[in-house]
This record gives sequence, structure tokens and C-alpha cells, in this order.
Amino acid sequence: MARSLGRIFRGFQSLGSLAFMKSELSNPPASVSLKSMVQTLPSLFSSNPRDFSLPNPSWGTEMRQLYEHYNSQCEAVTDGGEEQSGLWKRLPSYNRSLKYAAGGVYLSKIIQAKARLFTRNIRDPGAAFEYVIFANKKEQRCVCIFQAGHLLEGPPGNVHGGAIATMIDTVTGTHACVHSGPVMTANLNINYRSPIPLGSTVLIESSLDKKEGRKTFISCKVTSADGARLHTEATALFVSISVGQLMKG
Amino acid sequence: MARSLGRIFRGFQSLGSLAFMKSELSNPPASVSLKSMVQTLPSLFSSNPRDFSLPNPSWGTEMRQLYEHYNSQCEAVTDGGEEQSGLWKRLPSYNRSLKYAAGGVYLSKIIQAKARLFTRNIRDPGAAFEYVIFANKKEQRCVCIFQAGHLLEGPPGNVHGGAIATMIDTVTGTHACVHSGPVMTANLNINYRSPIPLGSTVLIESSLDKKEGRKTFISCKVTSADGARLHTEATALFVSISVGQLMKG
Repeated sequence: MARSLGRIFRGFQSLGSLAFMKSELSNPPASVSLKSMVQTLPSLFSSNPRDFSLPNPSWGTEMRQLYEHYNSQCEAVTDGGEEQSGLWKRLPSYNRSLKYAAGGVYLSKIIQAKARLFTRNIRDPGAAFEYVIFANKKEQRCVCIFQAGHLLEGPPGNVHGGAIATMIDTVTGTHACVHSGPVMTANLNINYRSPIPLGSTVLIESSLDKKEGRKTFISCKVTSADGARLHTEATALFVSISVGQLMKG
Repeated sequence: MARSLGRIFRGFQSLGSLAFMKSELSNPPASVSLKSMVQTLPSLFSSNPRDFSLPNPSWGTEMRQLYEHYNSQCEAVTDGGEEQSGLWKRLPSYNRSLKYAAGGVYLSKIIQAKARLFTRNIRDPGAAFEYVIFANKKEQRCVCIFQAGHLLEGPPGNVHGGAIATMIDTVTGTHACVHSGPVMTANLNINYRSPIPLGSTVLIESSLDKKEGRKTFISCKVTSADGARLHTEATALFVSISVGQLMKG
């Protein structure tokens, strides 16, 4: 059971922002709980989907170097099958949240088959969002390496504020899921300090501020790859939900 | 001159969020002012680019009906060439901000030729962001009709919080441009109240709160097409910039 729950939460890590419904939160449906969903779920990750968080030829030098920096400190499984501990854990990323979060087949009536996760909806490598997220449970923080492609333009030559908001939502939402299980975004408060040039690689670092009941508070900053320049700062509030609530949508 | 400035501002209306640089704002470069840029600009809109805000076959019934509702109240030019007044004005929308904002050719060194506006980077009609913005100068408000395509998924079956943030940034940023000329986003504060189902059409309405010096404050809400359900609320702060500041990046 613990293992299945872990898989579900890892699936949710790719969701990004989930808006929440106040009325449902105050009256959670007892009949479709997370527990009952888990008991009926099929085996997950059975079709070997593409993991978008792995390196591809579009990644520039900075992106690759930062990836290696964190990946070399990750927990791993040795050839002998033993688990090696590590400071960090790389989180996989797919282009459809549902089938990894809840098996997919049970929700086919309400979800169009062609739906794709917003941040992974363009297959051309390097054109849009290239990113990988690492989680550090001990220090309760996450780091995302993000290379912004040419399809994310807002101001001429710079990344669109909405694309920056999207990545902030994705990283803080993933962080909240790692810490609290399935959540939905309740608030994002973003201060834009300096533009991010198209094509550049930046670091998005999130830290856990506090957890109060169903609420998880996360802070986040976006800096240049060397950390010298602050691009964006944000706070985010997430509210825990059950899988049943999410499916009621 | 007034006419040229008007064209530039209309170009900027498609930009969406523009992050700003504090240091540059406090010391605007006198040598590259908006005025001098205008004097050197070539004729704009010369190549008849596609206007993405016009109806296409992917638009559903709600999207079309709302479009007709506002479009029928728009200012127009009669066959005789006379300008008819109207409550509303439809704002065109293109997939590249630069060439419409500043002529393009002067910035080719710093902008990749294949860059595309984030909200218009997918040409498949109906797959991602379908939207049109109308401005009402007299009442100092804007309204956007937004149909969310299947490539904008976040929570299973619902629109990604980052895609909602992107549209809020786009509508409030456009509104700020209409009112104050070129601006960059300084802050977005977004409260997510209820999820937006993929494929649905929503209304995004923005209103001007106040203008203080270089700062323009805009409020915004996202509701169901009939206005009955509140999905999202937000405030946004924009800071005026000169075209020269933008080009310095």
C-alpha cells in the first residue's frame, strides 16, 4: 500500500498547478477516497512512456553541467539491486498527468484522449520548456534547471511572464506534492525583477515555508544559472485534496 | 506621429507580460527614447500577418456567440471610409510581438528569427489558446473570450494553473498597454477558486484600479461563459517603460 501511494504521489508531481474548489474541500466525498482509488488502480508506468526530464541534444552546456551536478548526487540503484542513498532525487516528467496519477482508464469519459500536460505539449526538443526537477527531502527544497526555448517569447527576445509563472507553478506544485501528497494551487504571488532572455538556462529553487493543516506554503526564486542575477521571486499556497476530489473536477 | 505611436502601442498589446528591470527604470536611457525609435521605424503591418483573434472553425458555440456579442458593438470603418464609433474595440493578435511592436529588422541581432509569442506558438486551431480581447476605453475595462484547448492540461481534465496565469498576464498586460503605453509586468497575484475544464470557454474581465506615476494597477477575474461561476481572481501591477529600455533587454 505504501508503495502504491508513493507511485501515485510521484505521478502527481508532474501535474503543476491544480486549482481547488472550496466547497468540495469543506465537504470531502467519503465515498471516493484516495484509499479506495488506490485499491482499484492498475499497475502504473506499464507502457514505458518518454521521460522528458532526461537529457536530449537540445540541452546547452549550462543545462547539461547543472544536470550532472545534481544527478551525480542522486540516490541510485546499484547493479546488484541495492539502493544507494543520495542528497537528491531526480523526478521523472511525462506529457500526460492522468495516466500516471490515476491509471487513466477510469477517467476516459471526462478526459479527451489527446490532452497533454501544458509544459510538455510540444515534442520538438528545445523549442519550449526544457526542464528537470530534483528534490531534496532532507533539506525540504527542490531545484529545477530550466532552459527556455524560442516558443516561449513575451517581450521581444525574452521569456513571457506567463511561461515563467507556469514554471514557478510547476516547481512549487511538485514540491508541495512531494511534501504533502496531492494538492491544488490556491494562490501564486509573483514578483518579476528582471527579464529572462530566450534561450537561456535558469535555476528555479523552492523551499518549504510551513504546513498548516491542509495548507502548504512554498517560496521560490528564479536566478541566472550562476545564481548571480535574480529574475523572479514568488510565494505559493497549495491545498491538499484527495484523488476523489480531483476526479470530481 | 500620433498615428505611429498608436500603431506601436497596438503592437505592444500582444506582448503580454514584460518583466522589468529596476535599475533601468530609475535611470532611463535618454539616447534611445520611444520618440527616436518611432522616427526610424519602417511601415508596420506591411506583410499582412495572420490575425489570430479572428474566428476559426475550432471555435465552439459559446466562443462564437460571445465574439458576436462584443464584435457587433465595435467601432468600424464604413464602406465610405467613415469611422463609426462603438463601445468596444477588437484588438488584433499576432504570433510574434517584435515585428509589430518595433519593426523587427532593427533587433534581428538579439532575437532568434524563429521566436514566437508564447500564447500563439501552436498553429493547430483549437489545440491551445483560442482567445480574442476587446477593449472599452470609456469604461476603462477589457474583456477576453478564451477557449482552452486540449494542450493546456494541468490537473486531469482541467486547465493548467500556468496557462490560466498566462492568460491573466496577457489580458491585464494588454489592458495596461492600452491605458499607459508600453509596460512590463512587475507583479501578478492570482487566487485560484475553481478549476477550468479543458475545452470550455471562459470570460476574463479586467478593470483599471489606478495609475500612479509609472505604475498601472489592474484587477481581473475569470468566470464561466455565463458569468455564474468564479474560476480565478487576480491583481496585476505594471510599470511603464520606453521602447529603448525594452530593447536593451
